[in-house]
Amino acid sequence: MNVMEESLQMHKQWQGKIEVCTRTKIENARDLTLAYTPGVAQPCLEIQKDPDLSYELTRRSNLVAVITDGSAVLGLGDIGGLAGMPVMEGKCALFKAFADVDAFPLCIDSNDVDTIVDTIALISGSFGGINLEDIAAPRCFEIEAKLKERVDIPVFHDDQHGTAIVVGAAMLNACKLTGRKIGELKVVMSGAGAAGCAIAKFLLSLGVKDIIMLNSKGIICEGDDIRNPAQAEMAKITNRKHLRGGLADAMKGADVFVGVSKPDLVTADMVKSMNEKPFIFAMSNPVPEIMPDVAKSAGAYIVGTGRSDFPNQINNVVAFPGIFKGALAVRASDINEDMKLAAAHAIAACVSDEQLDVDFILPNAFDRNVSIKVAEAVAEAARKSGVARI
Amino acid sequence: MNVMEESLQMHKQWQGKIEVCTRTKIENARDLTLAYTPGVAQPCLEIQKDPDLSYELTRRSNLVAVITDGSAVLGLGDIGGLAGMPVMEGKCALFKAFADVDAFPLCIDSNDVDTIVDTIALISGSFGGINLEDIAAPRCFEIEAKLKERVDIPVFHDDQHGTAIVVGAAMLNACKLTGRKIGELKVVMSGAGAAGCAIAKFLLSLGVKDIIMLNSKGIICEGDDIRNPAQAEMAKITNRKHLRGGLADAMKGADVFVGVSKPDLVTADMVKSMNEKPFIFAMSNPVPEIMPDVAKSAGAYIVGTGRSDFPNQINNVVAFPGIFKGALAVRASDINEDMKLAAAHAIAACVSDEQLDVDFILPNAFDRNVSIKVAEAVAEAARKSGVARI
Repeated sequence: MNVMEESLQMHKQWQGKIEVCTRTKIENARDLTLAYTPGVAQPCLEIQKDPDLSYELTRRSNLVAVITDGSAVLGLGDIGGLAGMPVMEGKCALFKAFADVDAFPLCIDSNDVDTIVDTIALISGSFGGINLEDIAAPRCFEIEAKLKERVDIPVFHDDQHGTAIVVGAAMLNACKLTGRKIGELKVVMSGAGAAGCAIAKFLLSLGVKDIIMLNSKGIICEGDDIRNPAQAEMAKITNRKHLRGGLADAMKGADVFVGVSKPDLVTADMVKSMNEKPFIFAMSNPVPEIMPDVAKSAGAYIVGTGRSDFPNQINNVVAFPGIFKGALAVRASDINEDMKLAAAHAIAACVSDEQLDVDFILPNAFDRNVSIKVAEAVAEAARKSGVARI
Repeated sequence: MNVMEESLQMHKQWQGKIEVCTRTKIENARDLTLAYTPGVAQPCLEIQKDPDLSYELTRRSNLVAVITDGSAVLGLGDIGGLAGMPVMEGKCALFKAFADVDAFPLCIDSNDVDTIVDTIALISGSFGGINLEDIAAPRCFEIEAKLKERVDIPVFHDDQHGTAIVVGAAMLNACKLTGRKIGELKVVMSGAGAAGCAIAKFLLSLGVKDIIMLNSKGIICEGDDIRNPAQAEMAKITNRKHLRGGLADAMKGADVFVGVSKPDLVTADMVKSMNEKPFIFAMSNPVPEIMPDVAKSAGAYIVGTGRSDFPNQINNVVAFPGIFKGALAVRASDINEDMKLAAAHAIAACVSDEQLDVDFILPNAFDRNVSIKVAEAVAEAARKSGVARI
């Protein structure tokens, strides 16, 4: 039985990967009086007087909604929210397992930006944070931006920012290992969807100066006819030398390849054309842009993929649980750029100098210490940047 | 410390009365592969092919949303959804404690019928049933009716139907104990809000023929100028003798008083004016329409209240957990009148002939057997009435 069949069978057995449990015993009339009527009237009245008390008197302080419209689920495309729910439930299970953050999955049966924004905003008081998941570009950009305006709790599209943060952490440690400065890297980005654009922007935040992005047609260059608004925006902040051409052109002399695109795009010859000791982060899933053994043979010094069966798995699970844990801890009103940068540095710092190696630039996904360190750094950054509310 | 202060203190300690727990262990890469990527793609694809599989491959089959707009929370009135969340969480805890049904609380920040309906409909795929809670009349009628049209899962406004079902069960057992026939009872209903109207309708379904309803102005009578549409509807199906006047007029010769209105409305003299061995269900909370000792002294044979510190507590907790458990068990598309009637009879039947007594006409709220019996009866009624989908 392959992993797909086994997973299906396990899902039938599990009957859901999460459940709602009680935190209070309700065994007699006294319990009912305190947890329900008439006693419960008192916390209700306190919240009516001071809405912030909802964080102290309900589960809100530790609760994230994981919400999708099902328009970009895994690599499966627009399969609809209902069909995306096994992924949302899985994500919620990861939140709990990795950071003891409660998360609840919701699918929204609409593909309309404003409808999705309205729906989430109207129920946002039920949660302490919103994790958007598997929403297609460019809709995801607009939904996130509008929601951030509407609600006073953190909104975070993990497919964009979680991925960007982990790539950033990998980049920091790859630089550390090879004695390079991040500001001197020449980075080639293949894939200009939601994740690609977010990664490129985040690398710029992190100090990278030279990025060449490619979409399915080739290098994105300012001045060209770019219909996609997100890519048009990227054209203004990347490729400052106005290079044109394909992937082979972009790769010449590059220090880093970052792929969130398609299997087998990168050839051994392209790797050979890169600068010395290049880094290859080939995250197309499940088949990367180039297989690690091929990349290594061609001279790649550090290779990361999205897969757990190769070294250097670039896995969001080292980021989102701790990021939300930290944001919730200080009741942050937002997850801002400072907090994301703090998360990337904290993830990188979870790899000790002794551990740091070409095959170990990111912490183990199952190291429970990571979410704690990330949460501390994110909470601190929230405080310093003025978005912490406690 | 009184119960209000103690409840507030406990709520601070609990930090939420429910939490989201995992049903799968996620301890190594293999677990991640099965519960998350890449394995999770398979259940997603199966649901895309057959949406009904969402019941087998996610938690949906055992999951109810408890949703409010906070417009009629307990006796506190329109305190808003956020302030109503401690009640919603409490309700969710009861679902789990009494019937092992997962329930998740949501507040909607709107008082507009169509906005509320749209919001709930758009996220309904995330759940197996919708429990509407603490929504003010007449909005609650419209929301429930519109939602039932929109979604293919059960929608149930517990403040209406849960209460009606338990009053119905109490009535059945009171009749049994006194050898009366339900069709021969003369019932006086004080309170014509959401619960009052639902109780009156349900008693008619259950076989009661003679009901006199009163609102704050007195007896509701067809032909009078009744502005409230729900009460105007009630005028057409109650008070067939077109009686006019106040509560004292209505009570003369009545067999049953049912109150969901205000404290201390019923006097000893009114009880004395009733038929022999009358039943008094005085459910105004926390102070009933007449105190049990006063009612008994004036000749009341059976007295029930909403309170746990008197005999015969009329408590929804014997109804809603089992009703949803039964509806979910057969994947019912609705909770229809047949299912409600089955629930009332099942609750009544949970009191054995040996137990049945003037001070014991309803099962103990903490008897876990009740939800099982109710669920069986509700599931059976769903099957017979054609709304069961498995």
